[in-house]
Amino acid sequence: MPTTACLLVIGNEILSGRTQDANIRFLATGLGELGIALEEVRVIPDRPARIVNTVTECRARFDHVFTTGGIGPTHDDITAACVAEAVGVPLEIHPESYRLLEDYLGKEKFNPARQRMAMLPRGATPIPNSVSVAPGFTIANVHVMAGIPRVMQAMFTALAPTLEHGAPLVSVGWHAIDLREGALAEGLTAIQAAFPALDLGSYPFERPDGRRGVTLVAKGYDAGSVAAAGTQLHDFIVELGHTPIEGEPVA
Amino acid sequence: MPTTACLLVIGNEILSGRTQDANIRFLATGLGELGIALEEVRVIPDRPARIVNTVTECRARFDHVFTTGGIGPTHDDITAACVAEAVGVPLEIHPESYRLLEDYLGKEKFNPARQRMAMLPRGATPIPNSVSVAPGFTIANVHVMAGIPRVMQAMFTALAPTLEHGAPLVSVGWHAIDLREGALAEGLTAIQAAFPALDLGSYPFERPDGRRGVTLVAKGYDAGSVAAAGTQLHDFIVELGHTPIEGEPVA
Repeated sequence: MPTTACLLVIGNEILSGRTQDANIRFLATGLGELGIALEEVRVIPDRPARIVNTVTECRARFDHVFTTGGIGPTHDDITAACVAEAVGVPLEIHPESYRLLEDYLGKEKFNPARQRMAMLPRGATPIPNSVSVAPGFTIANVHVMAGIPRVMQAMFTALAPTLEHGAPLVSVGWHAIDLREGALAEGLTAIQAAFPALDLGSYPFERPDGRRGVTLVAKGYDAGSVAAAGTQLHDFIVELGHTPIEGEPVA
Repeated sequence: MPTTACLLVIGNEILSGRTQDANIRFLATGLGELGIALEEVRVIPDRPARIVNTVTECRARFDHVFTTGGIGPTHDDITAACVAEAVGVPLEIHPESYRLLEDYLGKEKFNPARQRMAMLPRGATPIPNSVSVAPGFTIANVHVMAGIPRVMQAMFTALAPTLEHGAPLVSVGWHAIDLREGALAEGLTAIQAAFPALDLGSYPFERPDGRRGVTLVAKGYDAGSVAAAGTQLHDFIVELGHTPIEGEPVA
């Protein structure tokens, strides 16, 4: 069983269509490379009950919960308070974070709204980041990160080496021009049945030059099975009368 | 109370980081314009129990559930079967969809895997689309669409006029160069308190020319309140000693 994770994207701006999400794919890829299976993503609004209930549910179901968004100084930045409530600890001034913020902003600009950013759940460990003083933190199995992509990415880079994880996810892919999903579905079902622990997928593509085709991918946490499934995918494409090309279409 | 919706993005390829989601923002925007509030998005894997349980939960909690992905001919295309189970009806050949697929593909290519695409939950209404014969459908309050963006978009365009909805979401925004979130948090909290039915948000930006600032946005379903809140946001920026500029930063 791989280590599992859920990502909570907290923010009305994604749900209203104002902002294009730029964090899901980065975290999905980074977690897979670490050997942590991202099992679910939820995008939820900046509303206290929704955040508290979702964190409570997801941290019981998954090994890790990652959140992005809601750690700035304004009224809709309520992630730290909601996570504290979900974990069952008080929210309090974190002295080290308070000092860092005060040093960075200067005493004059360090007003009550900004001081609120130094409130963390009791027992939280700050997640350092190289690009800002935004107060990310880990408490229990919940990792709270910024919503701004470059800050989130710096936080995840700092966090990654500390996370409990299993073997990394590995994958192998073959694609073929002019192949269609409908022609390969039955054979692919048979190969999937032979490798129940792997995820086999078929992905139709259209290259920029207009040529269409399908990529077949085998993915899993056991490198030996993935390699064996890859050989079967290759041979299956040959059987169908097409030419397998390794990896993803690039032209 | 606005009409509410949840979007389920079904597909391992988003959770593995293989594919960048391109559907959430389109649907979020389209639903908002219709007057349907997107309250939650979940990205879940192609696993039957996960899909059935999630559809069951979400269709009880929200007025509409939209799904994308998993309606092709391969072994991981299980959305129709799972939605049928969640709604409590059998999956069966839909004669009209069967004929459409057979006409499009020709008898010879219309193999058992492709015939499976004509299986819909009993009582489903197909969602037509102008770019493919992919079998989208509506059953009860669940709307099943393709994962491929241009097919999904064509389906949503056909579906939109048939959806029950309320007044459209309207918004007004003002931005100011050199304004910082930490300086406006307290005043914004007061304006939010005066308009509890609206969502007020502040969004830091950095323009391509390197100038930074914040956009303040008021959003809601009552146009009069949104306009009144917009005036207060404008005046608040002036009070802070900055110059309000309408809309989003563009330079």
